[in-house]
Amino acid sequence: MPSSSGVSFTRGPHTHGVPRELHALNRRRLCDKLRGIGGDDAGSFVVLQGGESTTVYCSDKEPVFRQESYFHWAFGVEEPDYFGAIDVAQNRAYLFMPRLPSSYAVWMGRLQTPEDVRARYGVDEVFYADTMADSLRAKGARTLLTLRGRNSDSGKMSTEAKFTGMEDGFKVDAGPLFEAMAELRVFKTPLELEVLRYANRVSSEAHKEVMRRIRPGIFEYQLESLFLHKCYGDGGARHVSYTCICCAGNNGAVLHYGHAGAPNDSPIADGDICLFDMGCEYYCYTSDITCSFPANGRFTADQRGVYEAVLSGSRAVLDAIRPGVSWVDMHKLAERRMLEGLRSMGLLKGDVDAMMEARLGATFMPHGLGHLMGLDVHDVGGYLSGAPPRPSEPGLRSLRTARTLHAGMVLTVEPGCYFIDTLLDEALRSPKLSPFLVPEVLSRFRGFGGVRIEDDVLITADGHEMLTQVPRTVEEIEALMAEGRC
Amino acid sequence: MPSSSGVSFTRGPHTHGVPRELHALNRRRLCDKLRGIGGDDAGSFVVLQGGESTTVYCSDKEPVFRQESYFHWAFGVEEPDYFGAIDVAQNRAYLFMPRLPSSYAVWMGRLQTPEDVRARYGVDEVFYADTMADSLRAKGARTLLTLRGRNSDSGKMSTEAKFTGMEDGFKVDAGPLFEAMAELRVFKTPLELEVLRYANRVSSEAHKEVMRRIRPGIFEYQLESLFLHKCYGDGGARHVSYTCICCAGNNGAVLHYGHAGAPNDSPIADGDICLFDMGCEYYCYTSDITCSFPANGRFTADQRGVYEAVLSGSRAVLDAIRPGVSWVDMHKLAERRMLEGLRSMGLLKGDVDAMMEARLGATFMPHGLGHLMGLDVHDVGGYLSGAPPRPSEPGLRSLRTARTLHAGMVLTVEPGCYFIDTLLDEALRSPKLSPFLVPEVLSRFRGFGGVRIEDDVLITADGHEMLTQVPRTVEEIEALMAEGRC
Repeated sequence: MPSSSGVSFTRGPHTHGVPRELHALNRRRLCDKLRGIGGDDAGSFVVLQGGESTTVYCSDKEPVFRQESYFHWAFGVEEPDYFGAIDVAQNRAYLFMPRLPSSYAVWMGRLQTPEDVRARYGVDEVFYADTMADSLRAKGARTLLTLRGRNSDSGKMSTEAKFTGMEDGFKVDAGPLFEAMAELRVFKTPLELEVLRYANRVSSEAHKEVMRRIRPGIFEYQLESLFLHKCYGDGGARHVSYTCICCAGNNGAVLHYGHAGAPNDSPIADGDICLFDMGCEYYCYTSDITCSFPANGRFTADQRGVYEAVLSGSRAVLDAIRPGVSWVDMHKLAERRMLEGLRSMGLLKGDVDAMMEARLGATFMPHGLGHLMGLDVHDVGGYLSGAPPRPSEPGLRSLRTARTLHAGMVLTVEPGCYFIDTLLDEALRSPKLSPFLVPEVLSRFRGFGGVRIEDDVLITADGHEMLTQVPRTVEEIEALMAEGRC
Repeated sequence: MPSSSGVSFTRGPHTHGVPRELHALNRRRLCDKLRGIGGDDAGSFVVLQGGESTTVYCSDKEPVFRQESYFHWAFGVEEPDYFGAIDVAQNRAYLFMPRLPSSYAVWMGRLQTPEDVRARYGVDEVFYADTMADSLRAKGARTLLTLRGRNSDSGKMSTEAKFTGMEDGFKVDAGPLFEAMAELRVFKTPLELEVLRYANRVSSEAHKEVMRRIRPGIFEYQLESLFLHKCYGDGGARHVSYTCICCAGNNGAVLHYGHAGAPNDSPIADGDICLFDMGCEYYCYTSDITCSFPANGRFTADQRGVYEAVLSGSRAVLDAIRPGVSWVDMHKLAERRMLEGLRSMGLLKGDVDAMMEARLGATFMPHGLGHLMGLDVHDVGGYLSGAPPRPSEPGLRSLRTARTLHAGMVLTVEPGCYFIDTLLDEALRSPKLSPFLVPEVLSRFRGFGGVRIEDDVLITADGHEMLTQVPRTVEEIEALMAEGRC
């Protein structure tokens, strides 16, 4: 376990060492922001609760713990059952650790002391959680700022500290903290970017290995397993950012394939196009990458056509993104290029402007172009107050943010094109959409599945930095896959 | 997805196909048992709730779903948010599935119909969960038997159906079901045993691969990752039964190493003895295997001494277990052999009977000899009413059951010997225990870590069937590890 080297987390010299300064800087930013909005009365303390240890149903099986993201942002503690507090005016940080019974040493390892924890995480002082009210009072706390707000992706409320201290005479204020923290999480610091770059590098290498090793006949989950092994065994990433989506052929038309109802359990056939959406997380920092490629290593003409229609949208967006650009416009740009591609393949006919007006793009790409990414893969801050509201049109309403881009944001760019029976049938029945469709060509693509090309980018002052490093053109993909066949 | 072949679960022809008859048989056994204790009034229906879909904290990230074990035992449904009911007198089974919005088809896959679900799981009828009260009434339900009882390992209450129907005029009876189901789960059917054998075979092969591939310098988690990959990629086992415990050297003295506070993150040194406790689960059926071996492939004299002391206990137990034997006696037998071994190594002195009387064994093996294993790795049924109560003596009180063995039980046999500083210090201070210790020899073993040898066995009419197939003698282990070095 790292302690005195300035590093709060590592998985060995071949992995990334995360400096504990990362969290000190986040806390400093939070104090500055709260001071700016009047949350800095003497005695105002932020109080956050970390994730709790749990067991599976009524058993004593404990899942591998993963820290709650807001708490992790502020403190970076790897273990469950902590609380943390920040004295806003003084910018001083305190951790409250669980008081474990001495028998813990036999079952779970050497008991950490408060001094061990202080040294590892670089906070000012560490107390036992059962002394929290008294310790906070002794440090001068009078008002506790707690985290209360709704996640715009899940609709769930944030984890608010169960210790509100009201019974101990503190004033509790759930006003300013949620929006302040969510907004800060949108903008990544250089230290956070280093972790995000690392997670992306690990995931990129794992995707490449999957492309080298895939063979017709293998089951989808066998490649999920290979991906997980490369990320953990080579990269030290014990968790993934989301359940791996490993689709062969028509399964690619199921956007969230991979869950228990569709558990990556199909064999992969020669001639299938594969869509693999997988990303590891390292120290809670996520990655989110999709690669689409032919199972047998060679694109058919139809596969190339669809792939290049999507790629054209992806590259157009990457050329255009920079501070000041609207994310909604980027979504439309990717759609337009994809529709142009499908028209040139003979799947569509008519005027692309009219297709855009009719929102035909949502038939082929029902999801949004991409989303903010950070400590959650669908990161917070998409629809805070003051930001543009969620659009209502088909396709656009799936966007997880409609914000204008600024330097320091990290987003996925993930246009896709899918042949989803229910959506194609709807479009064919629609007087508004059917005039653009060429049914006799479209029918050839029933069962095709889908293509998605998903990269993670940092918005920079003059454009973007590409975090994802995988082959993207048809030629690059075929060359990499040929390596695996030597 | 399997449907009409009689198989309710498989991960391809190289894996095990589980017949849906497994659950029909369990339900039949449950009806028979409830009839035997007067739970068969006309209109008595067992009602169980399956696991619910969840997200991680306030995010929309869904962990990979794992079914609740009682529900799985009765119905085997792979997906979340189901209910199930059994008409006890008629032995008829009903499932209640979530009614999903049509948009689900775009995001999550083709919508299953009630008929799809009925065909796959072989129940009598399937309804939507939102019609549950009416459907139950139409089927003649008047009394609902629900699952209310405490797990003796976790202390947590069982998952009781949130639908109790009381507002709909049903009578609710939480009396007989919990003990009936827990007791039935203790005794595995031939169909269940096939799944348990398969999970054990997969885990055994994965352990052997870890032994072949280990090298000094590698990190513990890299072998955890290899194990997970072998189990999932080769065996189709997406879950493990518990967090992998991958200890090198002194980490072996931490019994539940591997959790977030001690996350298998140490490099493995030449000369370390390793203790790897890892088991996959397949279709919720678990395995639980520990192998102990030298990192460099060759036992030192001290390592061999400790290892063979533990092995001697393990083999003595395996020779002795059969129906009618007390599990507490088996614990003591393993302890006795271990103490004899340590005495012959010069670590201990004096009379072994006196050591047993003083409970010295608990200094070196603070945990129990083993536990029931099935749909939970620490399976239910250890301390049901009428069974022997938990012993109170050191070591013995850690036993997860004190039952007399019967054919059809599956248990782990896992004696171990650990050099845990706090326990050694306690023993050295104890007037009762210190006379048996030879401090000048014992001191050589500070930092040694530990050895555990854990096999899974089925109690048969005349002894046991060994489910675990890994090398166990020093010679077998060294031979296997040499393979990896060719």
